[in-house]
Amino acid sequence: MINVAILGATGYAALELIRILLRHPSVRLTALTTRQDDHPRIDSIHPVLQGRCSLTCQNLSATEVADLADVVFCALPHVASMEAVPDLLSGGCRVIDLSADYRLNDAAVYEKWYGHTHTDADRLADTVYGLPELFAEQIPRADLVANPGCYTSTSILGLAPLLCQGLIEPGDIVIDAKSGVSGAGRAAKLGTIFSECNESLSAYAVGTHRHTPEIAQVLSTASGQQVEVIFTPHLVPMTRGILCTMYTRLTEDLSEAEILDRMRTFYEGRPFVRIVDHLPATKDCVGTNYCDMTVRKSGNRLVVLSCTDNLIKGAAGVAVQNFNLMHGLAETTALIV
Amino acid sequence: MINVAILGATGYAALELIRILLRHPSVRLTALTTRQDDHPRIDSIHPVLQGRCSLTCQNLSATEVADLADVVFCALPHVASMEAVPDLLSGGCRVIDLSADYRLNDAAVYEKWYGHTHTDADRLADTVYGLPELFAEQIPRADLVANPGCYTSTSILGLAPLLCQGLIEPGDIVIDAKSGVSGAGRAAKLGTIFSECNESLSAYAVGTHRHTPEIAQVLSTASGQQVEVIFTPHLVPMTRGILCTMYTRLTEDLSEAEILDRMRTFYEGRPFVRIVDHLPATKDCVGTNYCDMTVRKSGNRLVVLSCTDNLIKGAAGVAVQNFNLMHGLAETTALIV
Amino acid sequence: MINVAILGATGYAALELIRILLRHPSVRLTALTTRQDDHPRIDSIHPVLQGRCSLTCQNLSATEVADLADVVFCALPHVASMEAVPDLLSGGCRVIDLSADYRLNDAAVYEKWYGHTHTDADRLADTVYGLPELFAEQIPRADLVANPGCYTSTSILGLAPLLCQGLIEPGDIVIDAKSGVSGAGRAAKLGTIFSECNESLSAYAVGTHRHTPEIAQVLSTASGQQVEVIFTPHLVPMTRGILCTMYTRLTEDLSEAEILDRMRTFYEGRPFVRIVDHLPATKDCVGTNYCDMTVRKSGNRLVVLSCTDNLIKGAAGVAVQNFNLMHGLAETTALIV
Amino acid sequence: MINVAILGATGYAALELIRILLRHPSVRLTALTTRQDDHPRIDSIHPVLQGRCSLTCQNLSATEVADLADVVFCALPHVASMEAVPDLLSGGCRVIDLSADYRLNDAAVYEKWYGHTHTDADRLADTVYGLPELFAEQIPRADLVANPGCYTSTSILGLAPLLCQGLIEPGDIVIDAKSGVSGAGRAAKLGTIFSECNESLSAYAVGTHRHTPEIAQVLSTASGQQVEVIFTPHLVPMTRGILCTMYTRLTEDLSEAEILDRMRTFYEGRPFVRIVDHLPATKDCVGTNYCDMTVRKSGNRLVVLSCTDNLIKGAAGVAVQNFNLMHGLAETTALIV
Repeated sequence: MINVAILGATGYAALELIRILLRHPSVRLTALTTRQDDHPRIDSIHPVLQGRCSLTCQNLSATEVADLADVVFCALPHVASMEAVPDLLSGGCRVIDLSADYRLNDAAVYEKWYGHTHTDADRLADTVYGLPELFAEQIPRADLVANPGCYTSTSILGLAPLLCQGLIEPGDIVIDAKSGVSGAGRAAKLGTIFSECNESLSAYAVGTHRHTPEIAQVLSTASGQQVEVIFTPHLVPMTRGILCTMYTRLTEDLSEAEILDRMRTFYEGRPFVRIVDHLPATKDCVGTNYCDMTVRKSGNRLVVLSCTDNLIKGAAGVAVQNFNLMHGLAETTALIV
Repeated sequence: MINVAILGATGYAALELIRILLRHPSVRLTALTTRQDDHPRIDSIHPVLQGRCSLTCQNLSATEVADLADVVFCALPHVASMEAVPDLLSGGCRVIDLSADYRLNDAAVYEKWYGHTHTDADRLADTVYGLPELFAEQIPRADLVANPGCYTSTSILGLAPLLCQGLIEPGDIVIDAKSGVSGAGRAAKLGTIFSECNESLSAYAVGTHRHTPEIAQVLSTASGQQVEVIFTPHLVPMTRGILCTMYTRLTEDLSEAEILDRMRTFYEGRPFVRIVDHLPATKDCVGTNYCDMTVRKSGNRLVVLSCTDNLIKGAAGVAVQNFNLMHGLAETTALIV
Repeated sequence: MINVAILGATGYAALELIRILLRHPSVRLTALTTRQDDHPRIDSIHPVLQGRCSLTCQNLSATEVADLADVVFCALPHVASMEAVPDLLSGGCRVIDLSADYRLNDAAVYEKWYGHTHTDADRLADTVYGLPELFAEQIPRADLVANPGCYTSTSILGLAPLLCQGLIEPGDIVIDAKSGVSGAGRAAKLGTIFSECNESLSAYAVGTHRHTPEIAQVLSTASGQQVEVIFTPHLVPMTRGILCTMYTRLTEDLSEAEILDRMRTFYEGRPFVRIVDHLPATKDCVGTNYCDMTVRKSGNRLVVLSCTDNLIKGAAGVAVQNFNLMHGLAETTALIV
Repeated sequence: MINVAILGATGYAALELIRILLRHPSVRLTALTTRQDDHPRIDSIHPVLQGRCSLTCQNLSATEVADLADVVFCALPHVASMEAVPDLLSGGCRVIDLSADYRLNDAAVYEKWYGHTHTDADRLADTVYGLPELFAEQIPRADLVANPGCYTSTSILGLAPLLCQGLIEPGDIVIDAKSGVSGAGRAAKLGTIFSECNESLSAYAVGTHRHTPEIAQVLSTASGQQVEVIFTPHLVPMTRGILCTMYTRLTEDLSEAEILDRMRTFYEGRPFVRIVDHLPATKDCVGTNYCDMTVRKSGNRLVVLSCTDNLIKGAAGVAVQNFNLMHGLAETTALIV
């Protein structure tokens, strides 16, 4: 059994992590942390876990956690994450970091978009980006995996097969992304209370969302060319799910069927990508680790549609996918129910 | 024109008040207050008001407000309200108080349920309870009207015609009440964020909700007998609307049609009560000042169903109804659109 | 491996059945039926199943199904079910019937509430009612199990421990039940389109809902006394989940803690009942086979609150629980993920 | 008083029309039609109208309607509309047609996108397109006004000021449009039942939606150049509201503030366009006749965001705006509450 800890266990992604890890045959959950000092039981914070998990959340230091775990899923906010990760690694843990702190490989870009000096910048160049569909060979040996953002993985998975095969122009990509409200986290903010979000729809952070450089970096790395994207996120009155509608230009005149074939070939053997013929709906991937995608030609554009559950394939599910690869387990372990 | 101020203008009930008053032919809005010191424009807080109202919310004292207004709608939280009302009245204003501070006529009951000493207890006995369907004769001369709670008016309106006509037993009444989330106000709390409320349903404050003594008191006063109620509120994943399903025992064997007739007679001439034959749905009164109700016999019980828009008939609409009566205006002024 | 067929595979309960059975280690799905003649693939009807199940739905007779399966889950509408069940049984299958056709043990009561003559009335007296928390000893040997209704099991599970231990009066029970819209099925009807249901709440079938006699019958059988209930269902703007708020009278003066203890004792060893201290929310049992419940004293009443996922514990989950018991498997097999 | 009839009175846009016309000081509603033969009262179809309107819906021919009305709002489906309009006009009525039948001025384009031969093609060239913000001079004298589609007006209003002033390129426009479910109408279809739409998001009709040629035609006419658009509609789990996120390329380097100034100048004196600085949310225009819009620069694109209530500014509200202009009334009559 592999001893596993979760740092920052009270949020929504952590809840999904716990649910997946409880059914994982190789995992023993040994520690959950929170910055609260009252040591709440995890099933009082997430009552859905009653009868399943009665661990207490403790306010432990990274060093204390390192004594309790072989692997740590770090579900802390950015900045808090880079303060904990070095101690976890030096304590001998392998780390899957769900924050943004290790996703960008250039500290200057991090500082520009996140407004913080990166205090562990030396590690950025070598950190593995944990998107198994693109970087499966690097993940098994990694001690630190940067788990992708939810918008980013949904966008990247739809675009990568087209960019890597040279089918679309890398400099003319518009990503219109829509997310359920759980993507905003479990903190109480006026903007996410029910009466403000329900029965409403709006864009936010137009041109300034922090997932923008992450998408561009990973697609550039994967396809070996400079990729630029326009990215606009929207808040949709539903709890879970992301749909990215992406407008691209084909470099050659292929039919929809030919393009779908090329995408299927690209993802051959990847268990969590479903290239579908119909227009995918978020409800069909919510609760799963799948990314559903298709394409449509519209005027002079190729429209790529891609959707995921933001908390699973966009966070906890892909984290366990990375965990499985890091331990030589079947990639789907605990992820198909 | 009557100069009107609103204390506590940033909440949801205040927004509805502003929308109604903007179309009121006898009203000039002269002051909006907030405890924030940055003097926000009301249409930046409620963007739906853009192009309609550009007043600035100011942090004014009750005395300052009294100089600016003939009538004050007090949409402050309880306790804050009883701190402001004496100064408003002594400053010459007439006051419609949307808080709970003046609804109960016994200070000891107030202190028991609200956990605060009432600092203006002398006024409780004489304050008029602003439910025009029951107390229309007292409202015109009142200087201080206690605007009913949302659950209370919805419950009372359904039960009063039966209790006042002796058709149901006063000691065996169960009120199962369901409300949209806007009833919880506009403050950011974990319990009301979208991802917690959406796709979920639960009861809260079972046996302890503060509207319980208010319902019992008003029904007792109106019907001249001791009325007791069991009251259970629920939070429903919708923004607006209240439905009360009320279980009572008939004192004589009447048909549904006969009971509906007696209710129609009771409310004759009351413009905002609709006795309907079908089972009412909240969506049919949301956005209106109507209270829709019907009855059904079930086993040995009479089930009374009553619904309103919690922010209009349950708060802002009835407040303007009271305002109209206080000024000799048609009761429906600005309330039927 | 046990060969399993599902009759009526296109509805929501059938979808949940398929999802559970796909992870069941002892089950091979051998046939899915529909009355459509175009033989759709099940993953085109329910795209969430893509990559998981590609069976074709066929328009098979009961006799044809009996050749393909050891066990049949019958998810047909009432009437259709009693037309198929005799052939399934005589073909050697064991049957778990999710319709209402075999739940009532008196054909006259069936005909009164369902408006159809029962064409297989001889079987009613012996059919086992598939609520394992009450009838676990009878289920293992049964060839035909009548799977409970969703409202019924949620109501019964909350009330049974109190009635069976004589703690509440059997003749004064009010059940105020609230359900998500999936309970209305997957057929397109004006009353269930999004724009009619969303942001609205209403009661329906007050005093006439067909689950009423089922609840009374089962509670009477289980507790050995005549139980009567008032039952009022409501439609809530959410997809899944049922909450029953039940108003009862205690026969003796017990504290909430004492009552919860008595309930815990009653359900000792039952893996899917969670007696909780907090007020349960449907979101905490949606997606699970749990029934969460608690009690509160309010005035002279005991309020019992009970909730389930209407499609799982209220339909597909309990069906598999019955299946497990019928085959000597651990009751929780495939049901805790 | 102007006698007004509504053809097809049972749908959602017709309901909004009735609500607006009931408060219109110059209107008397004289006839409502339906193809049902049972003559339902309109307030039984739309219970929100109880106490407001008790007209009976009759199955009248266009000729019969023409005898009862000076002006007809035609809220029929396409094809049905062009069968009725000639008789209405020859019967002396002025007509505001909410269907698509008279929006396109080329019968061949109509037939291509709608799959029907246009049986009143001669009238297409002269029909006035009822978007007052662009065609206010033509509307007053028109006998037949083609009321715009909901997606189309929301898109056009955001883009027209930029195209008409040459600020963006006419051949590189992507419209990513999102609509609430009421846009799909009030008919019961599997795709719009609550359990299918709720908690889900998907695109539909990518590249094939019938509003595409309408947007291109009107923008081309208004700006005097060939405009082409890529248009992708999405279904959002909310009842009302449309948001269009539109990706364009600036022809000159202007700041956001300069562009907003140019838009404000363009719409000067137009009462229902609100150029806002913040990112607009649909909830702030739902229930109103406003179109809220803003712009953001993102990479090398100008993102234009525009939103409306699809049933009001996108249907019934603009129809009354047209009605007001046709009768020399203040454009805002009955439209600002």
